[in-house]
This record gives sequence, structure tokens and C-alpha cells, in this order.
Amino acid sequence: MNISERLLAGDKRAAARMITLLENNDPEAIELLKDLYKYTGNAYVIGITGPPGAGKSTLTDKLAKLIVKQGKRVAIVAIDPTSPFTGGAILGDRVRMSDLSANKNVFIRSMGARGHLGGISEATGAAVKVLDIYGVDYIFVETVGVGQSEVDIVKNCDTTVMVMVPGLGDDIQAIKAGVMEIGDIFAVNKADRDGAGKTAREINMMLDFNKGADWRPPVEKVIAVKNEGIEELFNHIMEHRNYMIQSDNFNHRRKINCKNEIVELVKQRVINLMLDKSYNEEFIETLSEDVANRKNNPYSACEEILNKLK
Amino acid sequence: MNISERLLAGDKRAAARMITLLENNDPEAIELLKDLYKYTGNAYVIGITGPPGAGKSTLTDKLAKLIVKQGKRVAIVAIDPTSPFTGGAILGDRVRMSDLSANKNVFIRSMGARGHLGGISEATGAAVKVLDIYGVDYIFVETVGVGQSEVDIVKNCDTTVMVMVPGLGDDIQAIKAGVMEIGDIFAVNKADRDGAGKTAREINMMLDFNKGADWRPPVEKVIAVKNEGIEELFNHIMEHRNYMIQSDNFNHRRKINCKNEIVELVKQRVINLMLDKSYNEEFIETLSEDVANRKNNPYSACEEILNKLK
Repeated sequence: MNISERLLAGDKRAAARMITLLENNDPEAIELLKDLYKYTGNAYVIGITGPPGAGKSTLTDKLAKLIVKQGKRVAIVAIDPTSPFTGGAILGDRVRMSDLSANKNVFIRSMGARGHLGGISEATGAAVKVLDIYGVDYIFVETVGVGQSEVDIVKNCDTTVMVMVPGLGDDIQAIKAGVMEIGDIFAVNKADRDGAGKTAREINMMLDFNKGADWRPPVEKVIAVKNEGIEELFNHIMEHRNYMIQSDNFNHRRKINCKNEIVELVKQRVINLMLDKSYNEEFIETLSEDVANRKNNPYSACEEILNKLK
Repeated sequence: MNISERLLAGDKRAAARMITLLENNDPEAIELLKDLYKYTGNAYVIGITGPPGAGKSTLTDKLAKLIVKQGKRVAIVAIDPTSPFTGGAILGDRVRMSDLSANKNVFIRSMGARGHLGGISEATGAAVKVLDIYGVDYIFVETVGVGQSEVDIVKNCDTTVMVMVPGLGDDIQAIKAGVMEIGDIFAVNKADRDGAGKTAREINMMLDFNKGADWRPPVEKVIAVKNEGIEELFNHIMEHRNYMIQSDNFNHRRKINCKNEIVELVKQRVINLMLDKSYNEEFIETLSEDVANRKNNPYSACEEILNKLK
């Protein structure tokens, strides 16, 4: 069997291999994925995001365990910050020593946040497609949610859980403001800590500002390490899924996600084309030097490149 | 006097107006900036970044006060998360009630992280240029440093201070890994808190992995609210500046920054061109719908757009 057939047959190693190939923007793998794309769309994709220290990995693990108990198959794609000195994804080793990884119904993948030719967003999108074809029921995409690229990633999920935590101090305002809009469900993790009630109240207050939305995100207190509140949280995910499907927001959101993905792909392809060594590097280097020396300016340099790209 | 002349004459209101125009990608303002670009390159640009809760604003304020005392002029460009519900930059109001804002030698600007046609990175770059032309000696660019766009912003500075803080728990590993490489100087703020020594040691250990670099980032414990360690921190900034200039890394980095900026501009222009309503929206909508319905796939759709852009 070739890799496509093995992937469709649910071969775990084929899935892992295919993701690696796509992480490296392998042209043949992309061609295969074009043909396989028609088999996607069946897995439900759940984004898990939140500030550093919120306990996202533990929470995701507990949710995954609950799903596995129901006889379903689940994948976790965890986007880790990449160590600048070792080049590897550091959390992959630290956190993912989970007893889940040996389970045949669980697929876990850590992806470094950098070093992808097409950007982490594209690599994540490709991994989600492969796992969808491979045949899991649920895919968790887990990422630290503060920056724009991280927000872009979870935006492409069907349901996104924002994990908050007590004790973030005044800066909870900043975090909330930066990512509030992408949360379909809010989990206040480590709810046995001081200030959990206050954090939940603050989130509820902020959500109450957003009158008129059809879906009012629920705020659930959980203690992931003790497995408390996980079932309630999962029920909220299912409620959101039902709401999305019944209101036709599901198809609407997926269409928007397709558009975002296409736009992102075009952006990356243009960058790759522009930076292609055999093509333009010298030209861009000279332009950059002229701009650095104030013989040119960045805006005119940009126009020169655009003219050349045409 | 027109706005360019007023800007060159050091008119504060002209600077503020020009930044606003450029935030809105005003074509005339961009034309003016092309001509004015030759007057840039004199201000020293210092990035201040770190996780939420690190006390970056207070630290920046204290550094700015120190510089003002030395008879120099200073600007602060603070990138704030944007409230999704109110649309405004929320920290602008909360934090910047500084006694500095009334000082004639200080220019403070809060910028919302979203809502810029060209992206926050482009808007920040434009603001830095305007302030450079306006004639300040130092420009601080302050941003939450976890995501990629935030990292991109401080990468374009001459010297970057990473502000860390005790009590981030295990997730300090993730934060460190994500942003370690961009810190020329590390400040451990709130150094009177438990765990400050441990945090400083962890950072030092991580830095020691990176053997062979010419510049070993110093790690300085500070208590910004008490103004402790601020002078030492500023001295480190000056040492880094001297090192950069003497080793010619200064010009090298500025050239790389120019290149990054040009690439970023091209990327944005392509996106704008692609999404231009009068041009392509219907085409992209149809493609997205076909992809959502699995009649097409994102990779082929991307190629169709690229062909059309040509």
C-alpha cells in the first residue's frame, strides 16, 4: 500500500510520516493531500488556548481521556514554543509524558512553533487534515493564546476553549482583551486557588458586554489535575457543537476558515517566491542595503519588488 | 507649514497626526514618509517585551524618566491588546496615566494591536520612523512578547530588553523558549518577590547554553515600582549599544531589519491586493465555498489565486 492508502486505512505511522512531510512542505505530500482532501471534514476540531501557566496540556489530556472512554478516537496537536538554542520543541518532552500516548485510539503530536517554511499556521492546518483523513473523531489543537499567529490557529477550530487561571493579576485585562473574542467556552482552571471566583466573575462581566450574540459563552470552573469539572466542560463543547450545527453557524464558520486558510497559503507562497534564493535574494539584499543607507525607503523598495513579482 | 515641515520642526501634534494617518495606511502620508525617510536613523530604538504581568509599562516609564533627566528626548510606543468588544486599546487608558505624558520631552503613543490594514508590525514601524524624524533620542517599543507578531516587532529594535518576573511557575520554560533569543538584556522585575533569585539563575543557565556568542546578555534584577536597578539596566542598554556599534553589528542588524520590513510590506500589499473588494472578493468567496464543500482543496485554490494575481 502507498502512504495515501495506509493513511485511509488508519495506519498511525503513515499519519505521523505524512505530517512530517507536510511540515517540510514536501511537494509530493501536498499533491497527495490535494487528492485526499475530499475525505476531510468529519473530525470535530477543538481549540484549547490560554495564557502560559493556565494548565492547558493537563486539561486537554483529561478531555481526551473522557472521549476515549466513550469509545471515540482522538488526536492532540500541541503547538510548543521552540527552543532557540536546541532547535527542538521543548514542551513536547516535558509535558507529553502522558499515559495517553500509548493508547491506540489516541494520536499525540507536538509541533515546534517555528521552523516551518509555510509557517506554523499552515503546518497545523495540514496536520489537522491528515488526522481527519486518518480517521479520528475529535482533534484538539492546543496553543498558547496571546499572539496573533496563535489566535489565527485556534480561529480555524470548530469550538475554542479559552483556559484562564486565577492569579494573573491586573494583566488578566490584557489577556482577556487580546483573546476574549475567540473563546466559545471559558474554563477557569485551578479553581481551588484563591481568586478563582473573582476571575470567573470578571470573565462573565466582560462577556455580558457583548449583548446580542446568539451564543453566550459559558464559564466553567475546573480543576484539571483532579479531573474536576471536565465532564461539565465537555458537555459545554457538545452544546456549542449542537448550537453551531442547528444555527448553520457550523458551515458558515468552516467556510470562513477555508477562506482564511487559502489567504494564508497565498501569503506564504508569495513570501516563498519572493525569498527564493535562486530568484531574488540578491535583488532584495541590494534593496535592503539601500534602505539601510537611506538611499531608498522601505515603501518604494516594496513597490519595486511587487513590480518584479508581476 | 505643511505637516512634513512641522514634523521636521519638532511639532508634537504633527507627529501624532502623521502616526494616525499612517495607521490608516493613508496613501498621501506614505508618499510624505518616502521623502522624509532620509531623516530617519538617528533615534536609538529599544524594545521592551515580556509576558503579561511582568511590569513592562512601569519599567519603561522609569527608564524614560531617567533619560529625560539626562536632558534627552524620548518616545514610548506601547502596543496594547485591543478590546474585542469596545474596539479600543484598553491599556492606553489604564496604564498610561503617567506624569510623563505632560512632559514636553516625552511622546507617548498607545497603539491597538489590531485593526490596522497593514498589520501592527507595519503600523509600529511607521510610528517609529515618524518619531525618529520628529527628533527624539530614544524610542521605546513596548509589547507583550509571547506571540510571533510581537516577536517580529521587537526584533526590529536596536536593543531589546526581555522583562521576566518571578512566579511564572513551570511555564517560564515555555516563555523563555519562545522569546529567549530576542533578548539582548534580561531584567528580572519585582525582584523583591519570592523566587527572583531562582528565575535569574534559570535565565543565566539557559543563556550559558548559547556558547560562542559575542554578546552574553546580562541578567539584572530590578524593582521598577521602587525605581531600583533602573540605572543599572540603562547602563546595560548603553553597553549593548556600544558593543553593537563597535562590532559593526549595529549596521548589520539595521540592514536585516530593513529587509524584514520590506518583506513584511510586500506580504501585506499582496494580501491587500488579493482581498481588494472590487477585484477578487467574489472569486475568493466562490473558491472558499468550493473548498468548504470539498469540491476543491485549499492548495489548488491557492494556486488559482496566484495565477490570477500574476
